Amino acid sequence: MDKDYNDIKVIGFDADDTLWVNETYFREAEEEIGLLLSKYETPNKIDQELFKIEIQNLPTYGYGVKGFILSAIELAIDLSNGKVSNNVIEAILEIGKDMINKPIELLDGVEKVLRELSKDYKLILATKGDLLDQERKLKKSGLIDYFHHIEVLSEKQEDNYKKLLKHLEIQPKEFLMVGNSLKSDILPLVNIGSKAIHVPFHTTWQHELVNDIESNGSDYKTVESLTEILKFFKAPK
Amino acid sequence: MDKDYNDIKVIGFDADDTLWVNETYFREAEEEIGLLLSKYETPNKIDQELFKIEIQNLPTYGYGVKGFILSAIELAIDLSNGKVSNNVIEAILEIGKDMINKPIELLDGVEKVLRELSKDYKLILATKGDLLDQERKLKKSGLIDYFHHIEVLSEKQEDNYKKLLKHLEIQPKEFLMVGNSLKSDILPLVNIGSKAIHVPFHTTWQHELVNDIESNGSDYKTVESLTEILKFFKAPK
Repeated sequence: MDKDYNDIKVIGFDADDTLWVNETYFREAEEEIGLLLSKYETPNKIDQELFKIEIQNLPTYGYGVKGFILSAIELAIDLSNGKVSNNVIEAILEIGKDMINKPIELLDGVEKVLRELSKDYKLILATKGDLLDQERKLKKSGLIDYFHHIEVLSEKQEDNYKKLLKHLEIQPKEFLMVGNSLKSDILPLVNIGSKAIHVPFHTTWQHELVNDIESNGSDYKTVESLTEILKFFKAPK
Repeated sequence: MDKDYNDIKVIGFDADDTLWVNETYFREAEEEIGLLLSKYETPNKIDQELFKIEIQNLPTYGYGVKGFILSAIELAIDLSNGKVSNNVIEAILEIGKDMINKPIELLDGVEKVLRELSKDYKLILATKGDLLDQERKLKKSGLIDYFHHIEVLSEKQEDNYKKLLKHLEIQPKEFLMVGNSLKSDILPLVNIGSKAIHVPFHTTWQHELVNDIESNGSDYKTVESLTEILKFFKAPK
């Protein structure tokens, strides 16, 4: 048992790209949208413009597939100067429905980690995005019984986590968050005095990963795969 | 104090059309969409077809403005046989953004009721729909401090409420739900052994209301306006 975690009562897990694949599906959808709009712009420009519209719309639409698709339709109209065909818009709607109905692809070791930790801790799923999407994914994943409940946060910022702790009726030091995003799952927690373990998702982040590991210390820990977090909770041999 | 409520620890409030106006905005949006598509069909047919597509898409999109708008775009393409102009689709996107950014119009007596009851009970907001939308509305409403937290339920069915009680760590008889929808806010609660107070929203429901009041009894209570619920919690004079 790592002494950092003596006080932990509740462990929060990020969902997308921590327990199961998600980002990959957005990248694939962006590629398909790029192909659909290829007569208007280069793939690179389409990507940039989509990102711009998504960020503009984020305060209105929030995270998740539905806002992404609404932004993509707006992009199609913009890039085509109001000339995009109904077929293309219909195809974008279909891409959205397909994304929502994708099967769940669990990441390595997820079930083992949840099974072990659920014996000693209250586990919650703490996720951004759409509640219906996340509940559906959790149901499909077969992991639902390991979690006390799902917390959907509209943003993963310090204030949202403070509200979460108030809601859980625990102190910051009694909470540990596990996730793949430094910005959303790790740094806000460190800032409010909770614990955090970073499990990077992309193999392309390996380079960055080395630096993270080197920076391990009192702030947060970084591991290469989810199963490694168990070592912090097992009695030293 | 009504003896029915002796055990109550937590009171859940529905949000849309219980604390603030919502349904009215959807009706207005439907009218605008009807006008936009009036060259393809009669208003009545457009309404029916929109409802049909919304119901078909409900398992995929869930509740809320974004799913409504995606369904409306699908409708526009369908009804026009793939000939609807980009201008119309853009106008539908705008209707959605306007709906999301509408100001909050509180219903009568809401603040008084929450102020009174929050002295003695843990209050939660229990709502369907989109978390971001609901958080934004709650923030705009100025009511945020009365609530312990927001619970967004993907559906308001018995199972969802059972999960909510588990999450709150209370018994069914310790929970009272207040809302405008018999189907979503009242009957599932009665069925799981919790308490419920029905506050119908539409003035056009007045006729139905009388019958509800007559059926008052052990199952659930019906009141004509939110402030009336206070009478159940005040010591008898």
